[in-house]
Amino acid sequence: MQKDRHMKAYGAEFLGTFWLVLGGCGSAVLAATFPHVGIGLLGVALAFGLTVLTMAYAVGHISGGHFNPAVSIGLWAGGRLLAKQLPPYIAAQLLGGLAAGGVLYLIASGHAGFDVSAGFASNGYGEHSPGGYSLLAAAISEVVMTAFFLLIILGSTSKRAPVGFAPVPIGLALTLIHLVSIPVTNTSVNPARSTGVALYAGGWAIDQLWLFWVAPIIGALLGALVYRGISSTGD
Amino acid sequence: MQKDRHMKAYGAEFLGTFWLVLGGCGSAVLAATFPHVGIGLLGVALAFGLTVLTMAYAVGHISGGHFNPAVSIGLWAGGRLLAKQLPPYIAAQLLGGLAAGGVLYLIASGHAGFDVSAGFASNGYGEHSPGGYSLLAAAISEVVMTAFFLLIILGSTSKRAPVGFAPVPIGLALTLIHLVSIPVTNTSVNPARSTGVALYAGGWAIDQLWLFWVAPIIGALLGALVYRGISSTGD
Amino acid sequence: MQKDRHMKAYGAEFLGTFWLVLGGCGSAVLAATFPHVGIGLLGVALAFGLTVLTMAYAVGHISGGHFNPAVSIGLWAGGRLLAKQLPPYIAAQLLGGLAAGGVLYLIASGHAGFDVSAGFASNGYGEHSPGGYSLLAAAISEVVMTAFFLLIILGSTSKRAPVGFAPVPIGLALTLIHLVSIPVTNTSVNPARSTGVALYAGGWAIDQLWLFWVAPIIGALLGALVYRGISSTGD
Amino acid sequence: MQKDRHMKAYGAEFLGTFWLVLGGCGSAVLAATFPHVGIGLLGVALAFGLTVLTMAYAVGHISGGHFNPAVSIGLWAGGRLLAKQLPPYIAAQLLGGLAAGGVLYLIASGHAGFDVSAGFASNGYGEHSPGGYSLLAAAISEVVMTAFFLLIILGSTSKRAPVGFAPVPIGLALTLIHLVSIPVTNTSVNPARSTGVALYAGGWAIDQLWLFWVAPIIGALLGALVYRGISSTGD
Repeated sequence: MQKDRHMKAYGAEFLGTFWLVLGGCGSAVLAATFPHVGIGLLGVALAFGLTVLTMAYAVGHISGGHFNPAVSIGLWAGGRLLAKQLPPYIAAQLLGGLAAGGVLYLIASGHAGFDVSAGFASNGYGEHSPGGYSLLAAAISEVVMTAFFLLIILGSTSKRAPVGFAPVPIGLALTLIHLVSIPVTNTSVNPARSTGVALYAGGWAIDQLWLFWVAPIIGALLGALVYRGISSTGD
Repeated sequence: MQKDRHMKAYGAEFLGTFWLVLGGCGSAVLAATFPHVGIGLLGVALAFGLTVLTMAYAVGHISGGHFNPAVSIGLWAGGRLLAKQLPPYIAAQLLGGLAAGGVLYLIASGHAGFDVSAGFASNGYGEHSPGGYSLLAAAISEVVMTAFFLLIILGSTSKRAPVGFAPVPIGLALTLIHLVSIPVTNTSVNPARSTGVALYAGGWAIDQLWLFWVAPIIGALLGALVYRGISSTGD
Repeated sequence: MQKDRHMKAYGAEFLGTFWLVLGGCGSAVLAATFPHVGIGLLGVALAFGLTVLTMAYAVGHISGGHFNPAVSIGLWAGGRLLAKQLPPYIAAQLLGGLAAGGVLYLIASGHAGFDVSAGFASNGYGEHSPGGYSLLAAAISEVVMTAFFLLIILGSTSKRAPVGFAPVPIGLALTLIHLVSIPVTNTSVNPARSTGVALYAGGWAIDQLWLFWVAPIIGALLGALVYRGISSTGD
Repeated sequence: MQKDRHMKAYGAEFLGTFWLVLGGCGSAVLAATFPHVGIGLLGVALAFGLTVLTMAYAVGHISGGHFNPAVSIGLWAGGRLLAKQLPPYIAAQLLGGLAAGGVLYLIASGHAGFDVSAGFASNGYGEHSPGGYSLLAAAISEVVMTAFFLLIILGSTSKRAPVGFAPVPIGLALTLIHLVSIPVTNTSVNPARSTGVALYAGGWAIDQLWLFWVAPIIGALLGALVYRGISSTGD
């Protein structure tokens, strides 16, 4: 029974990360620059946030609703997840992201003129930053944004926070993070999201993928550390 | 008394689907491309989601708040609706969608230059896809989007999910689905929404209507099946 | 004490309607068409909705949070407000709207090139409809939109609806209504909002003001009637 | 223990104000005018609101979630904060704003063509008002907007308001305030936000900073006074 419960949690993480990549990167690839009425960066930011808000309400009671290896690592650092759960959670998230990248590729390629090597919503820095931001700026942005993401996750799921609301601030925090940092790195704060599209885009997207594992994980650990500093024991 | 309660539920489904088509398709027909300050696809996506969020809070306690034949079928597959309720629910939804299409036609035609055959927010694929997406891409998009819609509906209304919040993730999931897939099919995931405008637009909109019955229903059944796989018995 | 409680309710209605007109019409006058980065109709729609969402949470426990004569009349028709409360509620709402129009005038005229006769966010039909919609289209739009607004208000504040959430669907219903109908009438559904700016704009805005009293009130009565049809006794 | 609890509250105020300035001003500096797909004033307004919504859920149970000297002063005037807490709260907020300004400077300067003296999202009036609004218009706007902000904060955190929801109306009130008043003053209503970027921008931003201390504080006191007038004793 315990094992069955764990398998269901991994399935939920697979599905949630699938939705995050299909919804977030999908809105960027399919709708952001649609002629005249495209949703722009604001629409993409909203889409990313809503993937988490919606699936956290749907499957949060099954897996906790991480959908992001950096979040799982930060929750472990914050004492909310057992270390032995990290590998299967991260594996499920990666598989979900990659499956979503594949489905998005199928849909997007049903349209004349689609070119996956144009980026496919991959994250980048330097000449592959949407706004041409340096590696240092990109690294600072990803570390700080992920740190606050974890701070908000840990705080809003604390026993002392209002019950039932957490998916709202957590999802909308991801929207906010995108509102600020898409121009800098196309916004990762989530290694599974970055990997889920980079493997299809290839080339520079894979070369630069390391940063979107390293920086979000450092940020998540930092966020968990800072949260410990301001919260009461056991929160 | 039981019969009276049922009639009220059908009335609520009629009204909810009326609002979904009037609000969602209305925003597309009347406001999306308004000169200089039009709401674009982002505004239309928000409008569709808010129709469900608002009416689910208003009449969810009367009918469950489906407003969509695919949702009713998915809830039946998920064990949340009796089979004998499907025909009257779907009939009420269809009538609501058609009535809303008529009222929208009345309003829109009070404006010089209105041409219903320009599409009237109908769903389409191939040359009638807003972005020129193929039938295959359109079918995949509608199936996958409806599957996740049902997953979110079943999960967020589970006994284990936070009480009272469900209309928020369900409505915003519909917004998210539109943020991604308007360019592909103009987004259906709802046969009553598609039918409610296609019958007025005529021509290709009716010829292609079959897909927006078949794909959302397949997606809804798939979503219910997947949800059974990750949830506990009876959730 | 009873009298004191009533006076506080009237004060709350004054403030809420003030905020609705200052926030909603203010966003339209000051920010909708700001060069390059203006908020457009989507931003104005959001602003109107947020005025109600925010003040309904702030003072809903003091006055019920109507901020709109049509809403007060609809709530009376729905059995939620005593007839003798209608005159003071409507008076407080009108005064609030007019005071807000004055403050908005003060702010807007601190900017070279401001011309109040350009409309000042007034409601109109025919040649004064933003999109050139006829009187009939304008009337249908205002009646139907206000009817659904009341349906959502009555339903989401029902004893059977989730507790505490009502300001969310009610506020966002107003956003949705604007997303659809700004092109038709500039969206009223609220005689106090219409009056609060028309008296400053003068001319056609006053000539056409009658419609934005008549249509919202008919719509509100219709919404209350329909809600009675689908709800249980005493809800 | 008491002292430790206080230090944690100051830490939470530091972090919340950091997030408000990094998220709000960051979205303005980095993303508002991004070519073709920039988030515009609507995106900036949403970003400011979401900084407060997210951190109020995350650390509201630790410090109350003010993130703004005018809010702390208004809460003191409303009987919700002890006078002796004002100096450390305001100091923590100022330090948080300044630290965020520094991090934003680091990120933004990692991009060719960044010029901090172009404004760096500072607040201004007269020729430094985004829309060229006069000092009087700017002062009225800041006073009235902050007064309503406090009214909404005091009302939605009242014992009689729905439990747990307050960060939603409070955060979205800040969004609404920006939707209306960015063209007038670039919107402050928060002296720590103004100071946190003005010190980097220098020049006129510092010369005009006085208004964004004086007007928000007057507005906050006014809002607290008005709220006392409409609320019951002890609310």
